[in-house]
Amino acid sequence: MPPPAPAGSLLRPDLRIFQVFGANTDVGKTIWTTILCRASNCDTETTTWYLKPVSTGPANAADAKHLRTYAPGVVSETLFQYDLAVSPHLAARVSNRPTPSDQALIRSVRDFAMGCIPSGSGWLFIETAGGVHSPGPAGSTQADLYMPLRLPVILIGDHKLGGISLSISAFESLRMRGYDIVAVLLFEGEEYKNHEYLTDYFRRHHAVHLGVIPSPPLMDSGPQAMEHYYQEVSSQKQVAAVVTLLREYHDNRIRRLREMAVISCEKIWFPFTQHGTLLSEDVTVIDSAYEDHFQTLATQSNPALQAQGVLRPTFDGSASWWTQGLGHGNPKLALAAAYAASRYGHVTFAQAVHEPALTLAEMLLDGLQNPRLTRVFFSDNGSTGVEVAVKMALRATCNRYGWGTSKDVEVLGLRGSYHGDTIGAMDCSEPNTFNEKVEWYSGRGLWLEYPTVQCANGQWVVELPPIMAPGGTKSIEFRSLSEIFNVKRRKGQLQELYVRYILDTLGHSNNLTRKFGALLLEPIVLGAGGMALVDPLFQRTLVEVVRQRGVLFSNSEPTGYPPNEPRDKNDWCGLPVIFDEVFTGLYRLGHFSAASFLGVHPDISVHAKLLTGGLLPLAVTVASEGIFKEFDGVDKSDALLHGHSYTAHPVGCQVALESVRTMRKMESERKWDWASGQDNGWAEDLDGQADFKDHNGSAKCPHVWSVWSAEFVKWLSKQKSTPSKRVKGAWALGSILAIHLDPDQGTVGYESNAAAGIKNALLQANGLEDGIAWNVHSRALGNVFYVMASQVTSKESIDRLEFLMRSFFSGN
Amino acid sequence: MPPPAPAGSLLRPDLRIFQVFGANTDVGKTIWTTILCRASNCDTETTTWYLKPVSTGPANAADAKHLRTYAPGVVSETLFQYDLAVSPHLAARVSNRPTPSDQALIRSVRDFAMGCIPSGSGWLFIETAGGVHSPGPAGSTQADLYMPLRLPVILIGDHKLGGISLSISAFESLRMRGYDIVAVLLFEGEEYKNHEYLTDYFRRHHAVHLGVIPSPPLMDSGPQAMEHYYQEVSSQKQVAAVVTLLREYHDNRIRRLREMAVISCEKIWFPFTQHGTLLSEDVTVIDSAYEDHFQTLATQSNPALQAQGVLRPTFDGSASWWTQGLGHGNPKLALAAAYAASRYGHVTFAQAVHEPALTLAEMLLDGLQNPRLTRVFFSDNGSTGVEVAVKMALRATCNRYGWGTSKDVEVLGLRGSYHGDTIGAMDCSEPNTFNEKVEWYSGRGLWLEYPTVQCANGQWVVELPPIMAPGGTKSIEFRSLSEIFNVKRRKGQLQELYVRYILDTLGHSNNLTRKFGALLLEPIVLGAGGMALVDPLFQRTLVEVVRQRGVLFSNSEPTGYPPNEPRDKNDWCGLPVIFDEVFTGLYRLGHFSAASFLGVHPDISVHAKLLTGGLLPLAVTVASEGIFKEFDGVDKSDALLHGHSYTAHPVGCQVALESVRTMRKMESERKWDWASGQDNGWAEDLDGQADFKDHNGSAKCPHVWSVWSAEFVKWLSKQKSTPSKRVKGAWALGSILAIHLDPDQGTVGYESNAAAGIKNALLQANGLEDGIAWNVHSRALGNVFYVMASQVTSKESIDRLEFLMRSFFSGN
Repeated sequence: MPPPAPAGSLLRPDLRIFQVFGANTDVGKTIWTTILCRASNCDTETTTWYLKPVSTGPANAADAKHLRTYAPGVVSETLFQYDLAVSPHLAARVSNRPTPSDQALIRSVRDFAMGCIPSGSGWLFIETAGGVHSPGPAGSTQADLYMPLRLPVILIGDHKLGGISLSISAFESLRMRGYDIVAVLLFEGEEYKNHEYLTDYFRRHHAVHLGVIPSPPLMDSGPQAMEHYYQEVSSQKQVAAVVTLLREYHDNRIRRLREMAVISCEKIWFPFTQHGTLLSEDVTVIDSAYEDHFQTLATQSNPALQAQGVLRPTFDGSASWWTQGLGHGNPKLALAAAYAASRYGHVTFAQAVHEPALTLAEMLLDGLQNPRLTRVFFSDNGSTGVEVAVKMALRATCNRYGWGTSKDVEVLGLRGSYHGDTIGAMDCSEPNTFNEKVEWYSGRGLWLEYPTVQCANGQWVVELPPIMAPGGTKSIEFRSLSEIFNVKRRKGQLQELYVRYILDTLGHSNNLTRKFGALLLEPIVLGAGGMALVDPLFQRTLVEVVRQRGVLFSNSEPTGYPPNEPRDKNDWCGLPVIFDEVFTGLYRLGHFSAASFLGVHPDISVHAKLLTGGLLPLAVTVASEGIFKEFDGVDKSDALLHGHSYTAHPVGCQVALESVRTMRKMESERKWDWASGQDNGWAEDLDGQADFKDHNGSAKCPHVWSVWSAEFVKWLSKQKSTPSKRVKGAWALGSILAIHLDPDQGTVGYESNAAAGIKNALLQANGLEDGIAWNVHSRALGNVFYVMASQVTSKESIDRLEFLMRSFFSGN
Repeated sequence: MPPPAPAGSLLRPDLRIFQVFGANTDVGKTIWTTILCRASNCDTETTTWYLKPVSTGPANAADAKHLRTYAPGVVSETLFQYDLAVSPHLAARVSNRPTPSDQALIRSVRDFAMGCIPSGSGWLFIETAGGVHSPGPAGSTQADLYMPLRLPVILIGDHKLGGISLSISAFESLRMRGYDIVAVLLFEGEEYKNHEYLTDYFRRHHAVHLGVIPSPPLMDSGPQAMEHYYQEVSSQKQVAAVVTLLREYHDNRIRRLREMAVISCEKIWFPFTQHGTLLSEDVTVIDSAYEDHFQTLATQSNPALQAQGVLRPTFDGSASWWTQGLGHGNPKLALAAAYAASRYGHVTFAQAVHEPALTLAEMLLDGLQNPRLTRVFFSDNGSTGVEVAVKMALRATCNRYGWGTSKDVEVLGLRGSYHGDTIGAMDCSEPNTFNEKVEWYSGRGLWLEYPTVQCANGQWVVELPPIMAPGGTKSIEFRSLSEIFNVKRRKGQLQELYVRYILDTLGHSNNLTRKFGALLLEPIVLGAGGMALVDPLFQRTLVEVVRQRGVLFSNSEPTGYPPNEPRDKNDWCGLPVIFDEVFTGLYRLGHFSAASFLGVHPDISVHAKLLTGGLLPLAVTVASEGIFKEFDGVDKSDALLHGHSYTAHPVGCQVALESVRTMRKMESERKWDWASGQDNGWAEDLDGQADFKDHNGSAKCPHVWSVWSAEFVKWLSKQKSTPSKRVKGAWALGSILAIHLDPDQGTVGYESNAAAGIKNALLQANGLEDGIAWNVHSRALGNVFYVMASQVTSKESIDRLEFLMRSFFSGN
């Protein structure tokens, strides 16, 4: 059995669930909740429940008891009761009982809610303890710990002196965590009249309703006065209006979720989507997302899932197009975004500088550990970042080789590479499915074959393309993936083979007359081209050959100095080398940069995706001083005339700063040891080299590891049970797992549907065995199936995913 | 004299200014401030000031009096004293005195701070009233009203029951408004030990120091006990550590601001910047921004400005590359961003939908009021949005005209158009400064001449290019800009002239053999091409001709039906018409869409920039159903295979939703009446047509208006004083003012430096006459100078800018 799935959002059509937060302790949460319980539980068709997940203070004075007294028809329950009247984290500590984890606590809340069986319609009010940020038993504040449930909120404001400030701040703390606050409720305070100010404030600034009722009698007025008070206020119009509002909110939320797929098929043009075959049932409706999971609408066609609630947690198996790093719904990134939005908004970056951009530039230059790179250029996404890189490189080459502004200069790359969807980035790839029907696409390059790495039939191998295997040897065996990444392999026969192939190709008479302006590579992994793991020795060799044989590229005398003797050791020679690390960089493969696996320093490096931890678009193109200087002059028109409106937008830069800093900290604090160490199988076969144990991604001998277990990859690579489950090979590195299936008849690559089987199996998994509907959303690339984790994915999630995939491949 | 400039950030090298906020009322702000005043004011070299801007409660119990008693060497002052001990907004209301506006209040604070003259180094502690969101006298909460000063903050946490929650929420409310919180200070609370939890919390989550000291004696312990307490704690290591921290923070902030320009010239590659001539003094260092103003580092070369403080407000005269709509540092947009970041982070948009994207799509389709448009495609910026539009249009045309995937299909456009910096968008423009040195650029189109509109010598005219003025008439006079935009001009001689020119050009034998796939226009204004206001009649006529004479474009028999009889009235005919409204749409010109000025409905419409109110990158390409259907099929490869990683990122969509909703609300609430009405001169010469009074941007007869006064534009257009101040023509529309200067000798267009004079004059304005250094940052386009306001720019700002420009042009 796999570990239990995380508790997801709580949403049931038949049960209106609201969570009551307080702007402060002692503002009347329990009294307001009692009123709502009484007012909602008004006919025989309706059942109302009350839940206090955590209560502190003597049991006989507990809130649930108050409810039982004054709302007798309501089922009232407390989950965790601590006698000491202090914050739950202190009360739990001194209670001598085991402290429930956040996960366990929200799971209990969920279990309680799922156990409510209304005969007609029902209500459940869940009352938190203290203020919005009062710590729960395990120490997380309540606003944080209840996030995954994403229940709609009723906020009880503070009617006392200072209460305006507390009510607004509490509202903001909830809102900036993605909560929907349906109503703010408040007692009338005669003296301070907070309700007057707040009614106007919340309506104007947040379009949120404020409900007001008279203050309750004093504590020592006795039960009769209290009962009288409840009778008085529960029938007030103000209260009825709030109940109506809550009912409408709930109904609208459900209705909207259920119509979204259909409306989206009418009004949205989805990216990379064949609408002609798209059914609205196949659109994933995402209510929210938390850490690695979307909360998705369970399809109506599945009654078993419907019974489990409207929403279910769905593992984000494509890491939302390879972007996710620090998890969905990360409040630290949210606060970083808000901070920069308020400090700057967007400010122009043309000859103007701001702190987040400058500090980010410094941090990236430091993290890349590449002595060549000195300059950071900002743009909006991987595709624009690559276009900038190409503009930089072509100019440098044309200048040095005296080609003027040459229109026929090309790039050198690998077959199957892919660099983005704008025309300039498309032109960097050979003709393929993605670009062949684009009118303005024209491949401008020479693309070499390359050897790939995978585990096949339980054996790690480097597979050579036919052109490199004239003697018939196509597959070279290695003891481990680590051995393949060991740079000591250099100077062997294989490298000689690579050098010969590269020289033969570049030196071919057809190619010698062409003009090349850049070597453009995705280091280690070709992503969109089909998750191909390239033999690192080949890429390293290619860079070396290009740098050592500049004579291959310049057919005129180079200006100033021989092309293979650069002005200084950090200047480019032969061709500028661009690494497109948009996908592979910033810890996707387990290290800060993918270049560090190769032990070569590119002249230009492009980064995006994980740069913002998976929150919003931002890209950088980092270049060497030699490249930069080629644009120097006195003439405006000689400058790099590229710049988007939101270049280096402070929000993106601040979020990137927070993300990169956090990921570097995770590395230095060895947060990934569970995956990178002995237990996960990636260190088992290191043939005793101390080098491999280096966690800093030393360029000399990088530590190869993955969150996926080495043993699972080997197991996968042996699966051949049925034609649709026939694995050709598999590999894992960093957070990526790629499974290459035998392509189905006739079609290969992106247009193949071979991976549809496992993709659908994971999507239709219902995980009901452990009580929570749970499934996996993923994207396939034709015959290649991949699952990508984030940098915060837990071992439990990986175990669950491996369990599910084992079930698929070993079933029939 | 112009209206006074806004008070900007308070930063002085010689005075360490900190603002003390409280997590709640009654948490010890005054006691902590007294301690800091005593501890900082520790030697004869130092002077410490204390300011309470707003105090409520009896004057003899006021905080400043407490300070005078217990920190006698400290200069203590209260600016606004109200006797009633309630929130300042209530106290001010009942005081029978005029309530100071937020502007006046922070101006007073600033004046006080600027009046502090320390002999050596100095300190100023400014204590707020109540909690962070307690309302100030005019009603704005303190966290909001003090934002423009952006003082570093000391937050006094709450040590009482519930104080953990209040302290964290208060911190977040400040942080999400861009405040830097340097330290959180707290009394030890023996019972609840909030300091233990909070010390760990703030260090771990925010790397912020928490200072703790024992609680003060009870209120009734008498002055001796209090004095004893102060003596005890003021010498504690904890307090000394805080003072050191504050000193270091201040020194580091100044040091960093002063080094940023130099470091940026070493590590940043700026967009559209010729680094070869860039001096670090010319880099604008932006500390923060609020509404229309940056807070920039005053250059060290200007001692007069230095004396005014390190920072000064600088009007963002390029609207940060035309993006600004709702002002810098808008907390509503910040909260929208944070909400979506926490609710979703980024979630994949490939066949997956989320609420902000779907609702935004619905809102845009509704707002555009174009019956043709049904489908919204998301991308990241204007350039990608245009590439998507072109991919859509070319495919539609190639399909209909049976050209297959034609590689030589071109666009039809206007000379001087510009659509972005990616290669595909570049290819849509004719060769120009921006693209001529880009290796992979190749113009793919036919670009027509066009008549322009301007006010010249006080007269509104349409100027014809020579090719349209065979009889020598080059300039046609109109009574007003409104008259030029009056669609009743149709069917006159001028339109006949336009039709003839267009038909002659398209029907020319050279062009008849070419394949055109789209008509691509920037409606009304060509932006980057030189702020050219195009005669709307010409653009309208061009669209009509293209739609009516499909035979010009299809040289093979059209498939299915005659090309000029579309399948339905909302389908395209002739060529798909793309409007690039990236710059001109979403209220930049005063109306929701620029197309509404022309009274024609494009088949594809591209929007970005103002879409997010000026916060972060997001673009939409909105298309008609006919275009969309061309990509339908059963084959994946027939789909529009375009999509960026962060397509429809929820943060951008949520911010756009907030922005578009806010701008539409501003329009419906007639917030721009001060500019659009009689007073500003744009309605004065409407020749009595009721149509012109329509505020809804009716396509038939749009109301033409600008925040710039009509009279000022006329005045400008007559200026000829010196060669460098010779105005050829000027125009204003919406928030744009464009001044076309006589180009300097020999150079025209982008490479001209004619506009450098006024640009530099505005940059070097020091505005010291009204006591606050104030200047204007702008970008010029060669000989064209422009200033662009946001959608929230005040009349006062415009008046100030017009005053400054009048001074420039009328001076010598």
